[in-house]
Amino acid sequence: MLTINTTRFKDTFACLTRDGATEAGGLNRPALSLNHLAARQTFREMIDAGGFELLEDGAGNLSARWTCNQSGAQTLMLGSHLDSVPEGGRFDGTLGVAAAFEVLHVLRESKLDLCMNLEVMDFTDEEGTWISLWGSRALTGQLSAREFANPRGNPAEFQAQLARAGLTQEGSLSASRENDPFAGYLELHIEQGTRLEKAQAQIGVVTGVVGIHMFLVTFHGTANHAGTTPMDERRDAAQGAAAFCQAVRKRTMASFADCVATVGRMDFTPGAFNIIPERVTVFMELRSDDDKRAGELEGALREEAAQAAREHSLDLDFDHLETVESRAMDLDLCRTIEAAADGLNLSYRRLLSLAGHDAQNMALLCPAGLLFVPSIGGYSHSAREYTRWEDCVAGANTLLNTAHAFALNMPKVLQV
Amino acid sequence: MLTINTTRFKDTFACLTRDGATEAGGLNRPALSLNHLAARQTFREMIDAGGFELLEDGAGNLSARWTCNQSGAQTLMLGSHLDSVPEGGRFDGTLGVAAAFEVLHVLRESKLDLCMNLEVMDFTDEEGTWISLWGSRALTGQLSAREFANPRGNPAEFQAQLARAGLTQEGSLSASRENDPFAGYLELHIEQGTRLEKAQAQIGVVTGVVGIHMFLVTFHGTANHAGTTPMDERRDAAQGAAAFCQAVRKRTMASFADCVATVGRMDFTPGAFNIIPERVTVFMELRSDDDKRAGELEGALREEAAQAAREHSLDLDFDHLETVESRAMDLDLCRTIEAAADGLNLSYRRLLSLAGHDAQNMALLCPAGLLFVPSIGGYSHSAREYTRWEDCVAGANTLLNTAHAFALNMPKVLQV
Repeated sequence: MLTINTTRFKDTFACLTRDGATEAGGLNRPALSLNHLAARQTFREMIDAGGFELLEDGAGNLSARWTCNQSGAQTLMLGSHLDSVPEGGRFDGTLGVAAAFEVLHVLRESKLDLCMNLEVMDFTDEEGTWISLWGSRALTGQLSAREFANPRGNPAEFQAQLARAGLTQEGSLSASRENDPFAGYLELHIEQGTRLEKAQAQIGVVTGVVGIHMFLVTFHGTANHAGTTPMDERRDAAQGAAAFCQAVRKRTMASFADCVATVGRMDFTPGAFNIIPERVTVFMELRSDDDKRAGELEGALREEAAQAAREHSLDLDFDHLETVESRAMDLDLCRTIEAAADGLNLSYRRLLSLAGHDAQNMALLCPAGLLFVPSIGGYSHSAREYTRWEDCVAGANTLLNTAHAFALNMPKVLQV
Repeated sequence: MLTINTTRFKDTFACLTRDGATEAGGLNRPALSLNHLAARQTFREMIDAGGFELLEDGAGNLSARWTCNQSGAQTLMLGSHLDSVPEGGRFDGTLGVAAAFEVLHVLRESKLDLCMNLEVMDFTDEEGTWISLWGSRALTGQLSAREFANPRGNPAEFQAQLARAGLTQEGSLSASRENDPFAGYLELHIEQGTRLEKAQAQIGVVTGVVGIHMFLVTFHGTANHAGTTPMDERRDAAQGAAAFCQAVRKRTMASFADCVATVGRMDFTPGAFNIIPERVTVFMELRSDDDKRAGELEGALREEAAQAAREHSLDLDFDHLETVESRAMDLDLCRTIEAAADGLNLSYRRLLSLAGHDAQNMALLCPAGLLFVPSIGGYSHSAREYTRWEDCVAGANTLLNTAHAFALNMPKVLQV
């Protein structure tokens, strides 16, 4: 088995987690923030110093490329992202870029006769500060002007930060590499949950990424005086929303253990101490890797919402706002990851990714593989996020040997 | 019994509900808005046209005064307010000003030998667009700079609207008339509830105004990934807040039928589809005329909040934000109102006011009486607010004869 240079890997990770480091021990690098731009500049300098080819596309995706001697060779891409959520952790995304960059070094140094180009990618805005999975959606031809007209943050601030970063809408919309010869995509990421830690497994082999279904559920009652309106005569939208919020948790846990559902926010109108709320909008999402199960859970939660509305004499709107489709990872690549882990004497288990990743977009273009390392305590999107260094090394070695095996197994016809 | 001039009363009410009239049939006159300033100007012109003395104080309180021939006579004040909540109804406040102004006309015309000055008051911002019960608190010496530093609305907008109205903080803080010789205060208002309608009573004799206790109840959990965090490991602040919201209603209705409690708003942090809420703040108020019962209900709801926090492994802050104290109306004045209603063959019942009124502040300076007329359907703070015209007339006649009887019953020593 090949092994990484742990000293260099440690240096690389230290360099890539320097910009935007917080006192709490995390990273504050929302996409296009000054901290994020600094981290990208650091990565550019590392690519140059490493003697790799530097590529940047119109969506801001930044990559290091090593080209083999074979003309017409396909490309194996490895990658993740350098951006973070506000006040996020050090491992989410950046560990994957650092590991992929180390793999690139080792494979070049090993002087193997690989008939494959290698590329290590930092995707723009994986966290969706402005556009969810922006970089990988641009690269796979899935962006339109609609996403630019409706950024997640303030539109004026978005335009200002785009300009500061030297990016444009046109650049992102023309960044598709759908016609490039990609042989495969591999990504190392932290689990962001506790399943590996609980199973005492060192490597998670991701078989698929869950679909995400977002809903706006609005209860309509009657605004009235909070003093003079008898409690048994109220049409209080807060009560319907609160009953539904609890039902989302209870029903999902009782009957849909393979799914998760979350109420992340409620908006109250008019929203004053002394007025019975006329309208409460519940922001609810559910996740499942099985679209049929997601549909069944949606049906069950529609029943719960209708019952909460009936109980409190409210009207109801139940709107399906947006869906991010579930996506299977490549089964052969799963087996290749498992074989690499076996060769390294690492324990592993298959699991679903309950979070979105750039791998789910790359899977539209080529076979994609995603492997996880344990998140201690499951903390995520927080400075408390933590992965043991030996697990980081184990993950990087698994990534390395998976990439190596994948390259060796490429059909000969492509190696001409 | 004396009777009002219904034609003139109808004209007065029509004039005073003209400014800020909405298409829906309500009034849109938040304090200091252009619509509100227009209504105040209309009232000024009516006072001039009626030949009454016009008074304005530093808090913007606007009144019509008729002085009797006796030097050293005390003043009976009658009043209510011309401001409304945004998109409010036509009767809340304005009916009371119109009725009081009609009473002033009739008592002057009746050429009775009253040894009492009469004053009809439009109090500023009863609805608390900027400062709750602003005008009557200023007049009774209960305002401080604190209220001006913390207006309910946007502070910059408050300063701009103050300046436009020609008002200042200093003016309000020096508007106290605590040393004026007030004999009493009388106010007619709509009930804003359904008790009179249900009891088929024409007049409500208010024995007291409930206290209002406002709380901010904050549940603290852990922000975490809405996909990767198993549902049984979450510290989800939304779940604690939702459980508490439902408990507020259930516990109050089950064990505190003499109180009301309302959750008017919840604020979610960080407040996104895909993040488990770290913190939810519940805006809760409770009302009771009995401070002991209010304290018992507060204790019960503290238990409910603690239980909701325990169930969902959350931390809890339960902060008592503000109290508006309960206030008894004058019992002799209650009897005088009842005698007037009896004389007019009107049905009546005693009740508590579950809303705040300027009368509760005036009760600090002198005996105060408050009478209600029915609100059909109980609609309040809405264009749907409605009181039958015959009930408005019955209320005005009761106000007239109560004022008359009160003036006649003044101790002779004051009539010298």
